[in-house]
Amino acid sequence: MSAFADHLAEAARRREAAGLTRVLSCDHPHGLIDLAGNDYLSLRHDPAVLESATRALQAYGAGAGASRLVTGTWPVHDELEAELATLTNMPAALVFSTGYHVNLSVITALADTDTLVVSDAHNHASLIDAARLARGRVAVVPHLDTAAVEQALRERTEPRALVVVESVFSVLGDAADLVALHALAERYDAMLVVDEAHGIGVVGGRGEGLAAATGLTPSERLVITTSLSKSLATQGGAAMCTPLVREHLVNTARPFIFDTGLAPAAAGAALGALRRFVADPAMVARVRDAAGRIADALGVQRPAGAVLSAPMPGPKQALAAVARAAGAGVRIGCFRPPSTPDGVSRLRLTAHAGLSEADLEHATAVLRTLRA
Amino acid sequence: MSAFADHLAEAARRREAAGLTRVLSCDHPHGLIDLAGNDYLSLRHDPAVLESATRALQAYGAGAGASRLVTGTWPVHDELEAELATLTNMPAALVFSTGYHVNLSVITALADTDTLVVSDAHNHASLIDAARLARGRVAVVPHLDTAAVEQALRERTEPRALVVVESVFSVLGDAADLVALHALAERYDAMLVVDEAHGIGVVGGRGEGLAAATGLTPSERLVITTSLSKSLATQGGAAMCTPLVREHLVNTARPFIFDTGLAPAAAGAALGALRRFVADPAMVARVRDAAGRIADALGVQRPAGAVLSAPMPGPKQALAAVARAAGAGVRIGCFRPPSTPDGVSRLRLTAHAGLSEADLEHATAVLRTLRA
Ligand SMILES: Cc1ncc(COP(=O)(O)O)c(C=O)c1O
Ligand SMILES: Cc1ncc(COP(=O)(O)O)c(C=O)c1O
Repeated sequence: MSAFADHLAEAARRREAAGLTRVLSCDHPHGLIDLAGNDYLSLRHDPAVLESATRALQAYGAGAGASRLVTGTWPVHDELEAELATLTNMPAALVFSTGYHVNLSVITALADTDTLVVSDAHNHASLIDAARLARGRVAVVPHLDTAAVEQALRERTEPRALVVVESVFSVLGDAADLVALHALAERYDAMLVVDEAHGIGVVGGRGEGLAAATGLTPSERLVITTSLSKSLATQGGAAMCTPLVREHLVNTARPFIFDTGLAPAAAGAALGALRRFVADPAMVARVRDAAGRIADALGVQRPAGAVLSAPMPGPKQALAAVARAAGAGVRIGCFRPPSTPDGVSRLRLTAHAGLSEADLEHATAVLRTLRA
Repeated sequence: MSAFADHLAEAARRREAAGLTRVLSCDHPHGLIDLAGNDYLSLRHDPAVLESATRALQAYGAGAGASRLVTGTWPVHDELEAELATLTNMPAALVFSTGYHVNLSVITALADTDTLVVSDAHNHASLIDAARLARGRVAVVPHLDTAAVEQALRERTEPRALVVVESVFSVLGDAADLVALHALAERYDAMLVVDEAHGIGVVGGRGEGLAAATGLTPSERLVITTSLSKSLATQGGAAMCTPLVREHLVNTARPFIFDTGLAPAAAGAALGALRRFVADPAMVARVRDAAGRIADALGVQRPAGAVLSAPMPGPKQALAAVARAAGAGVRIGCFRPPSTPDGVSRLRLTAHAGLSEADLEHATAVLRTLRA
């Protein structure tokens, strides 16, 4: 056996023994109420979204055909950038092929060896990988600990600093105090990068996200990043920023420059989804209302967005609860190590605008029994 | 002005002064013969490809809805994985949201501090970033220098080693000696990672890529990666490997686990494109024939795939040649620092199966005058 096969087989045995082996399945049992996906506004099958995707597919082809800087930029990218900037009340936007690419790009393009990256301990894997790829020092601060952020900024020796958080955190579902962090960025001459993957389409009267809803935008000290795969119902990502930052990304961000442009169908779908919730903001209110009712049923705090989390004693109990819920007709997810920032196994549930009153009544009844 | 704005504005001034500022444009002038994109088989607008994309879009929605391990795996992902494995004669495949994600995933999942990564000096940015993100030592070897690879493997102190190359290199268009590298992997108990982004659909009788065409597949010592954005006409990526490696990726690769599944429309498009060229391998021969004629016109060596490269004295001359070609009706690209692995500015041209005889005659006539 080769050294590699040996090594991988040993890792597989360890996972198996720990009950942590994960397997892909394209099984989507019929009739389950879905509280696991990230399609917060239930727009993945919306006719207007599909039509907008199809129109872009027909007009510009099945792929962008090249990287954005070569010949892979199409009018649908420009339109999407303009409308995302307007939605978030920021001066400019740049679209990427995934949310992961956005975070890698923004942080590696902005942070060099003269830049301190101050990163919340619960930040998403893409933000952690990005900070690692950037060549500067990284200060990981305890989750939501604004005082620790201030201390890191005050004591830094680097001329520049980036503070990096999620607006609504993807695992716990809690929210960052963006007003306080932005004030720190002002006071200590730093830049604030806010990942709104779980904020856009869910927070604010029109789904504009937490930064805009809090009145922080527009700001020169702010870069907002997002995935297009949650409320925007498809795949891709975007950064909302000043034209100066956008130009810098276009010219220096490797995961933008050396990557094929976002597929036109995805750009079209995101544009269609954005227009749908801007035109019908009641769906934004609906998802938050559903999230509140699910939280009450679980006995946890009402969340800032659509993501809910409930800690469990261990990975086995989490898996058992997921199976129990599925048996009762409700699909929920769980995060187990190494997918959790703190090693705690958790049920993870998400609310959706498309849940009917009957769905919610059934789901909350099931959830009430789940952690008993 | 903030420290950041100052810093970015200064970088912008330096780019401008060096003639290296890059600007996005969604201008696609009508009537230009395109020798710049990566749609090698001209399948982006193929009716069967668009139909396959539309079918997946309608069936599974505008996005996968979640990460692959949560609820974001759909039958179209499974089908695409099965057919990519068959095409390349490898036992298994795993689909990702971009080619960049594949390379980041494969290398960070396989390489730890006990693994030496031996990386060709001309490797793609995604492979370089991946090697940087992996925590082990990286030995960068001169381009196509098999003896240097052997020396690095022989002198290593790490128990494991990965040799990382492109099959057909994305800038120069030349090819790696996969047979020799695979033999070295055998001899020194290492693994060979081959990025076939520019090999699949172009090299081999059925577009199976260089590794399969050379008779190397299946092999336990081989991982093949690819983008779905070149011959496969859309967006996304895939790794072809053993089931053991696939399971390891699913369980440990962060840019796979923490990323939304590939959009169904893209998976459908790639499947449609693959079926098209497998059913009609004449298009594979056509693109290589076109590449040969373009090479002859430029006075450079006939390439291994569809990518051609011609060195220019500097970035200004490269830009001028691009403008001259555009004036004469031919769209070509150029790579300027920092996009080139060795600081040399180059024209970059690509051949396509869809070029008509008239296109080729006109284009080659223009190219013959271009470097004079
Ligand atoms: C907070 C956060 N940021 C970034 C991402 C990555 O986005 P994408 O899936 O579009 O790569 C995700 C989830 O996928 C996320 O939850
Ligand atoms: C050799 C090579 N590998 C990987 C990639 C990245 O693929 P993608 O554009 O799908 O991210 C590219 C080009 O884009 C490439 O040329």
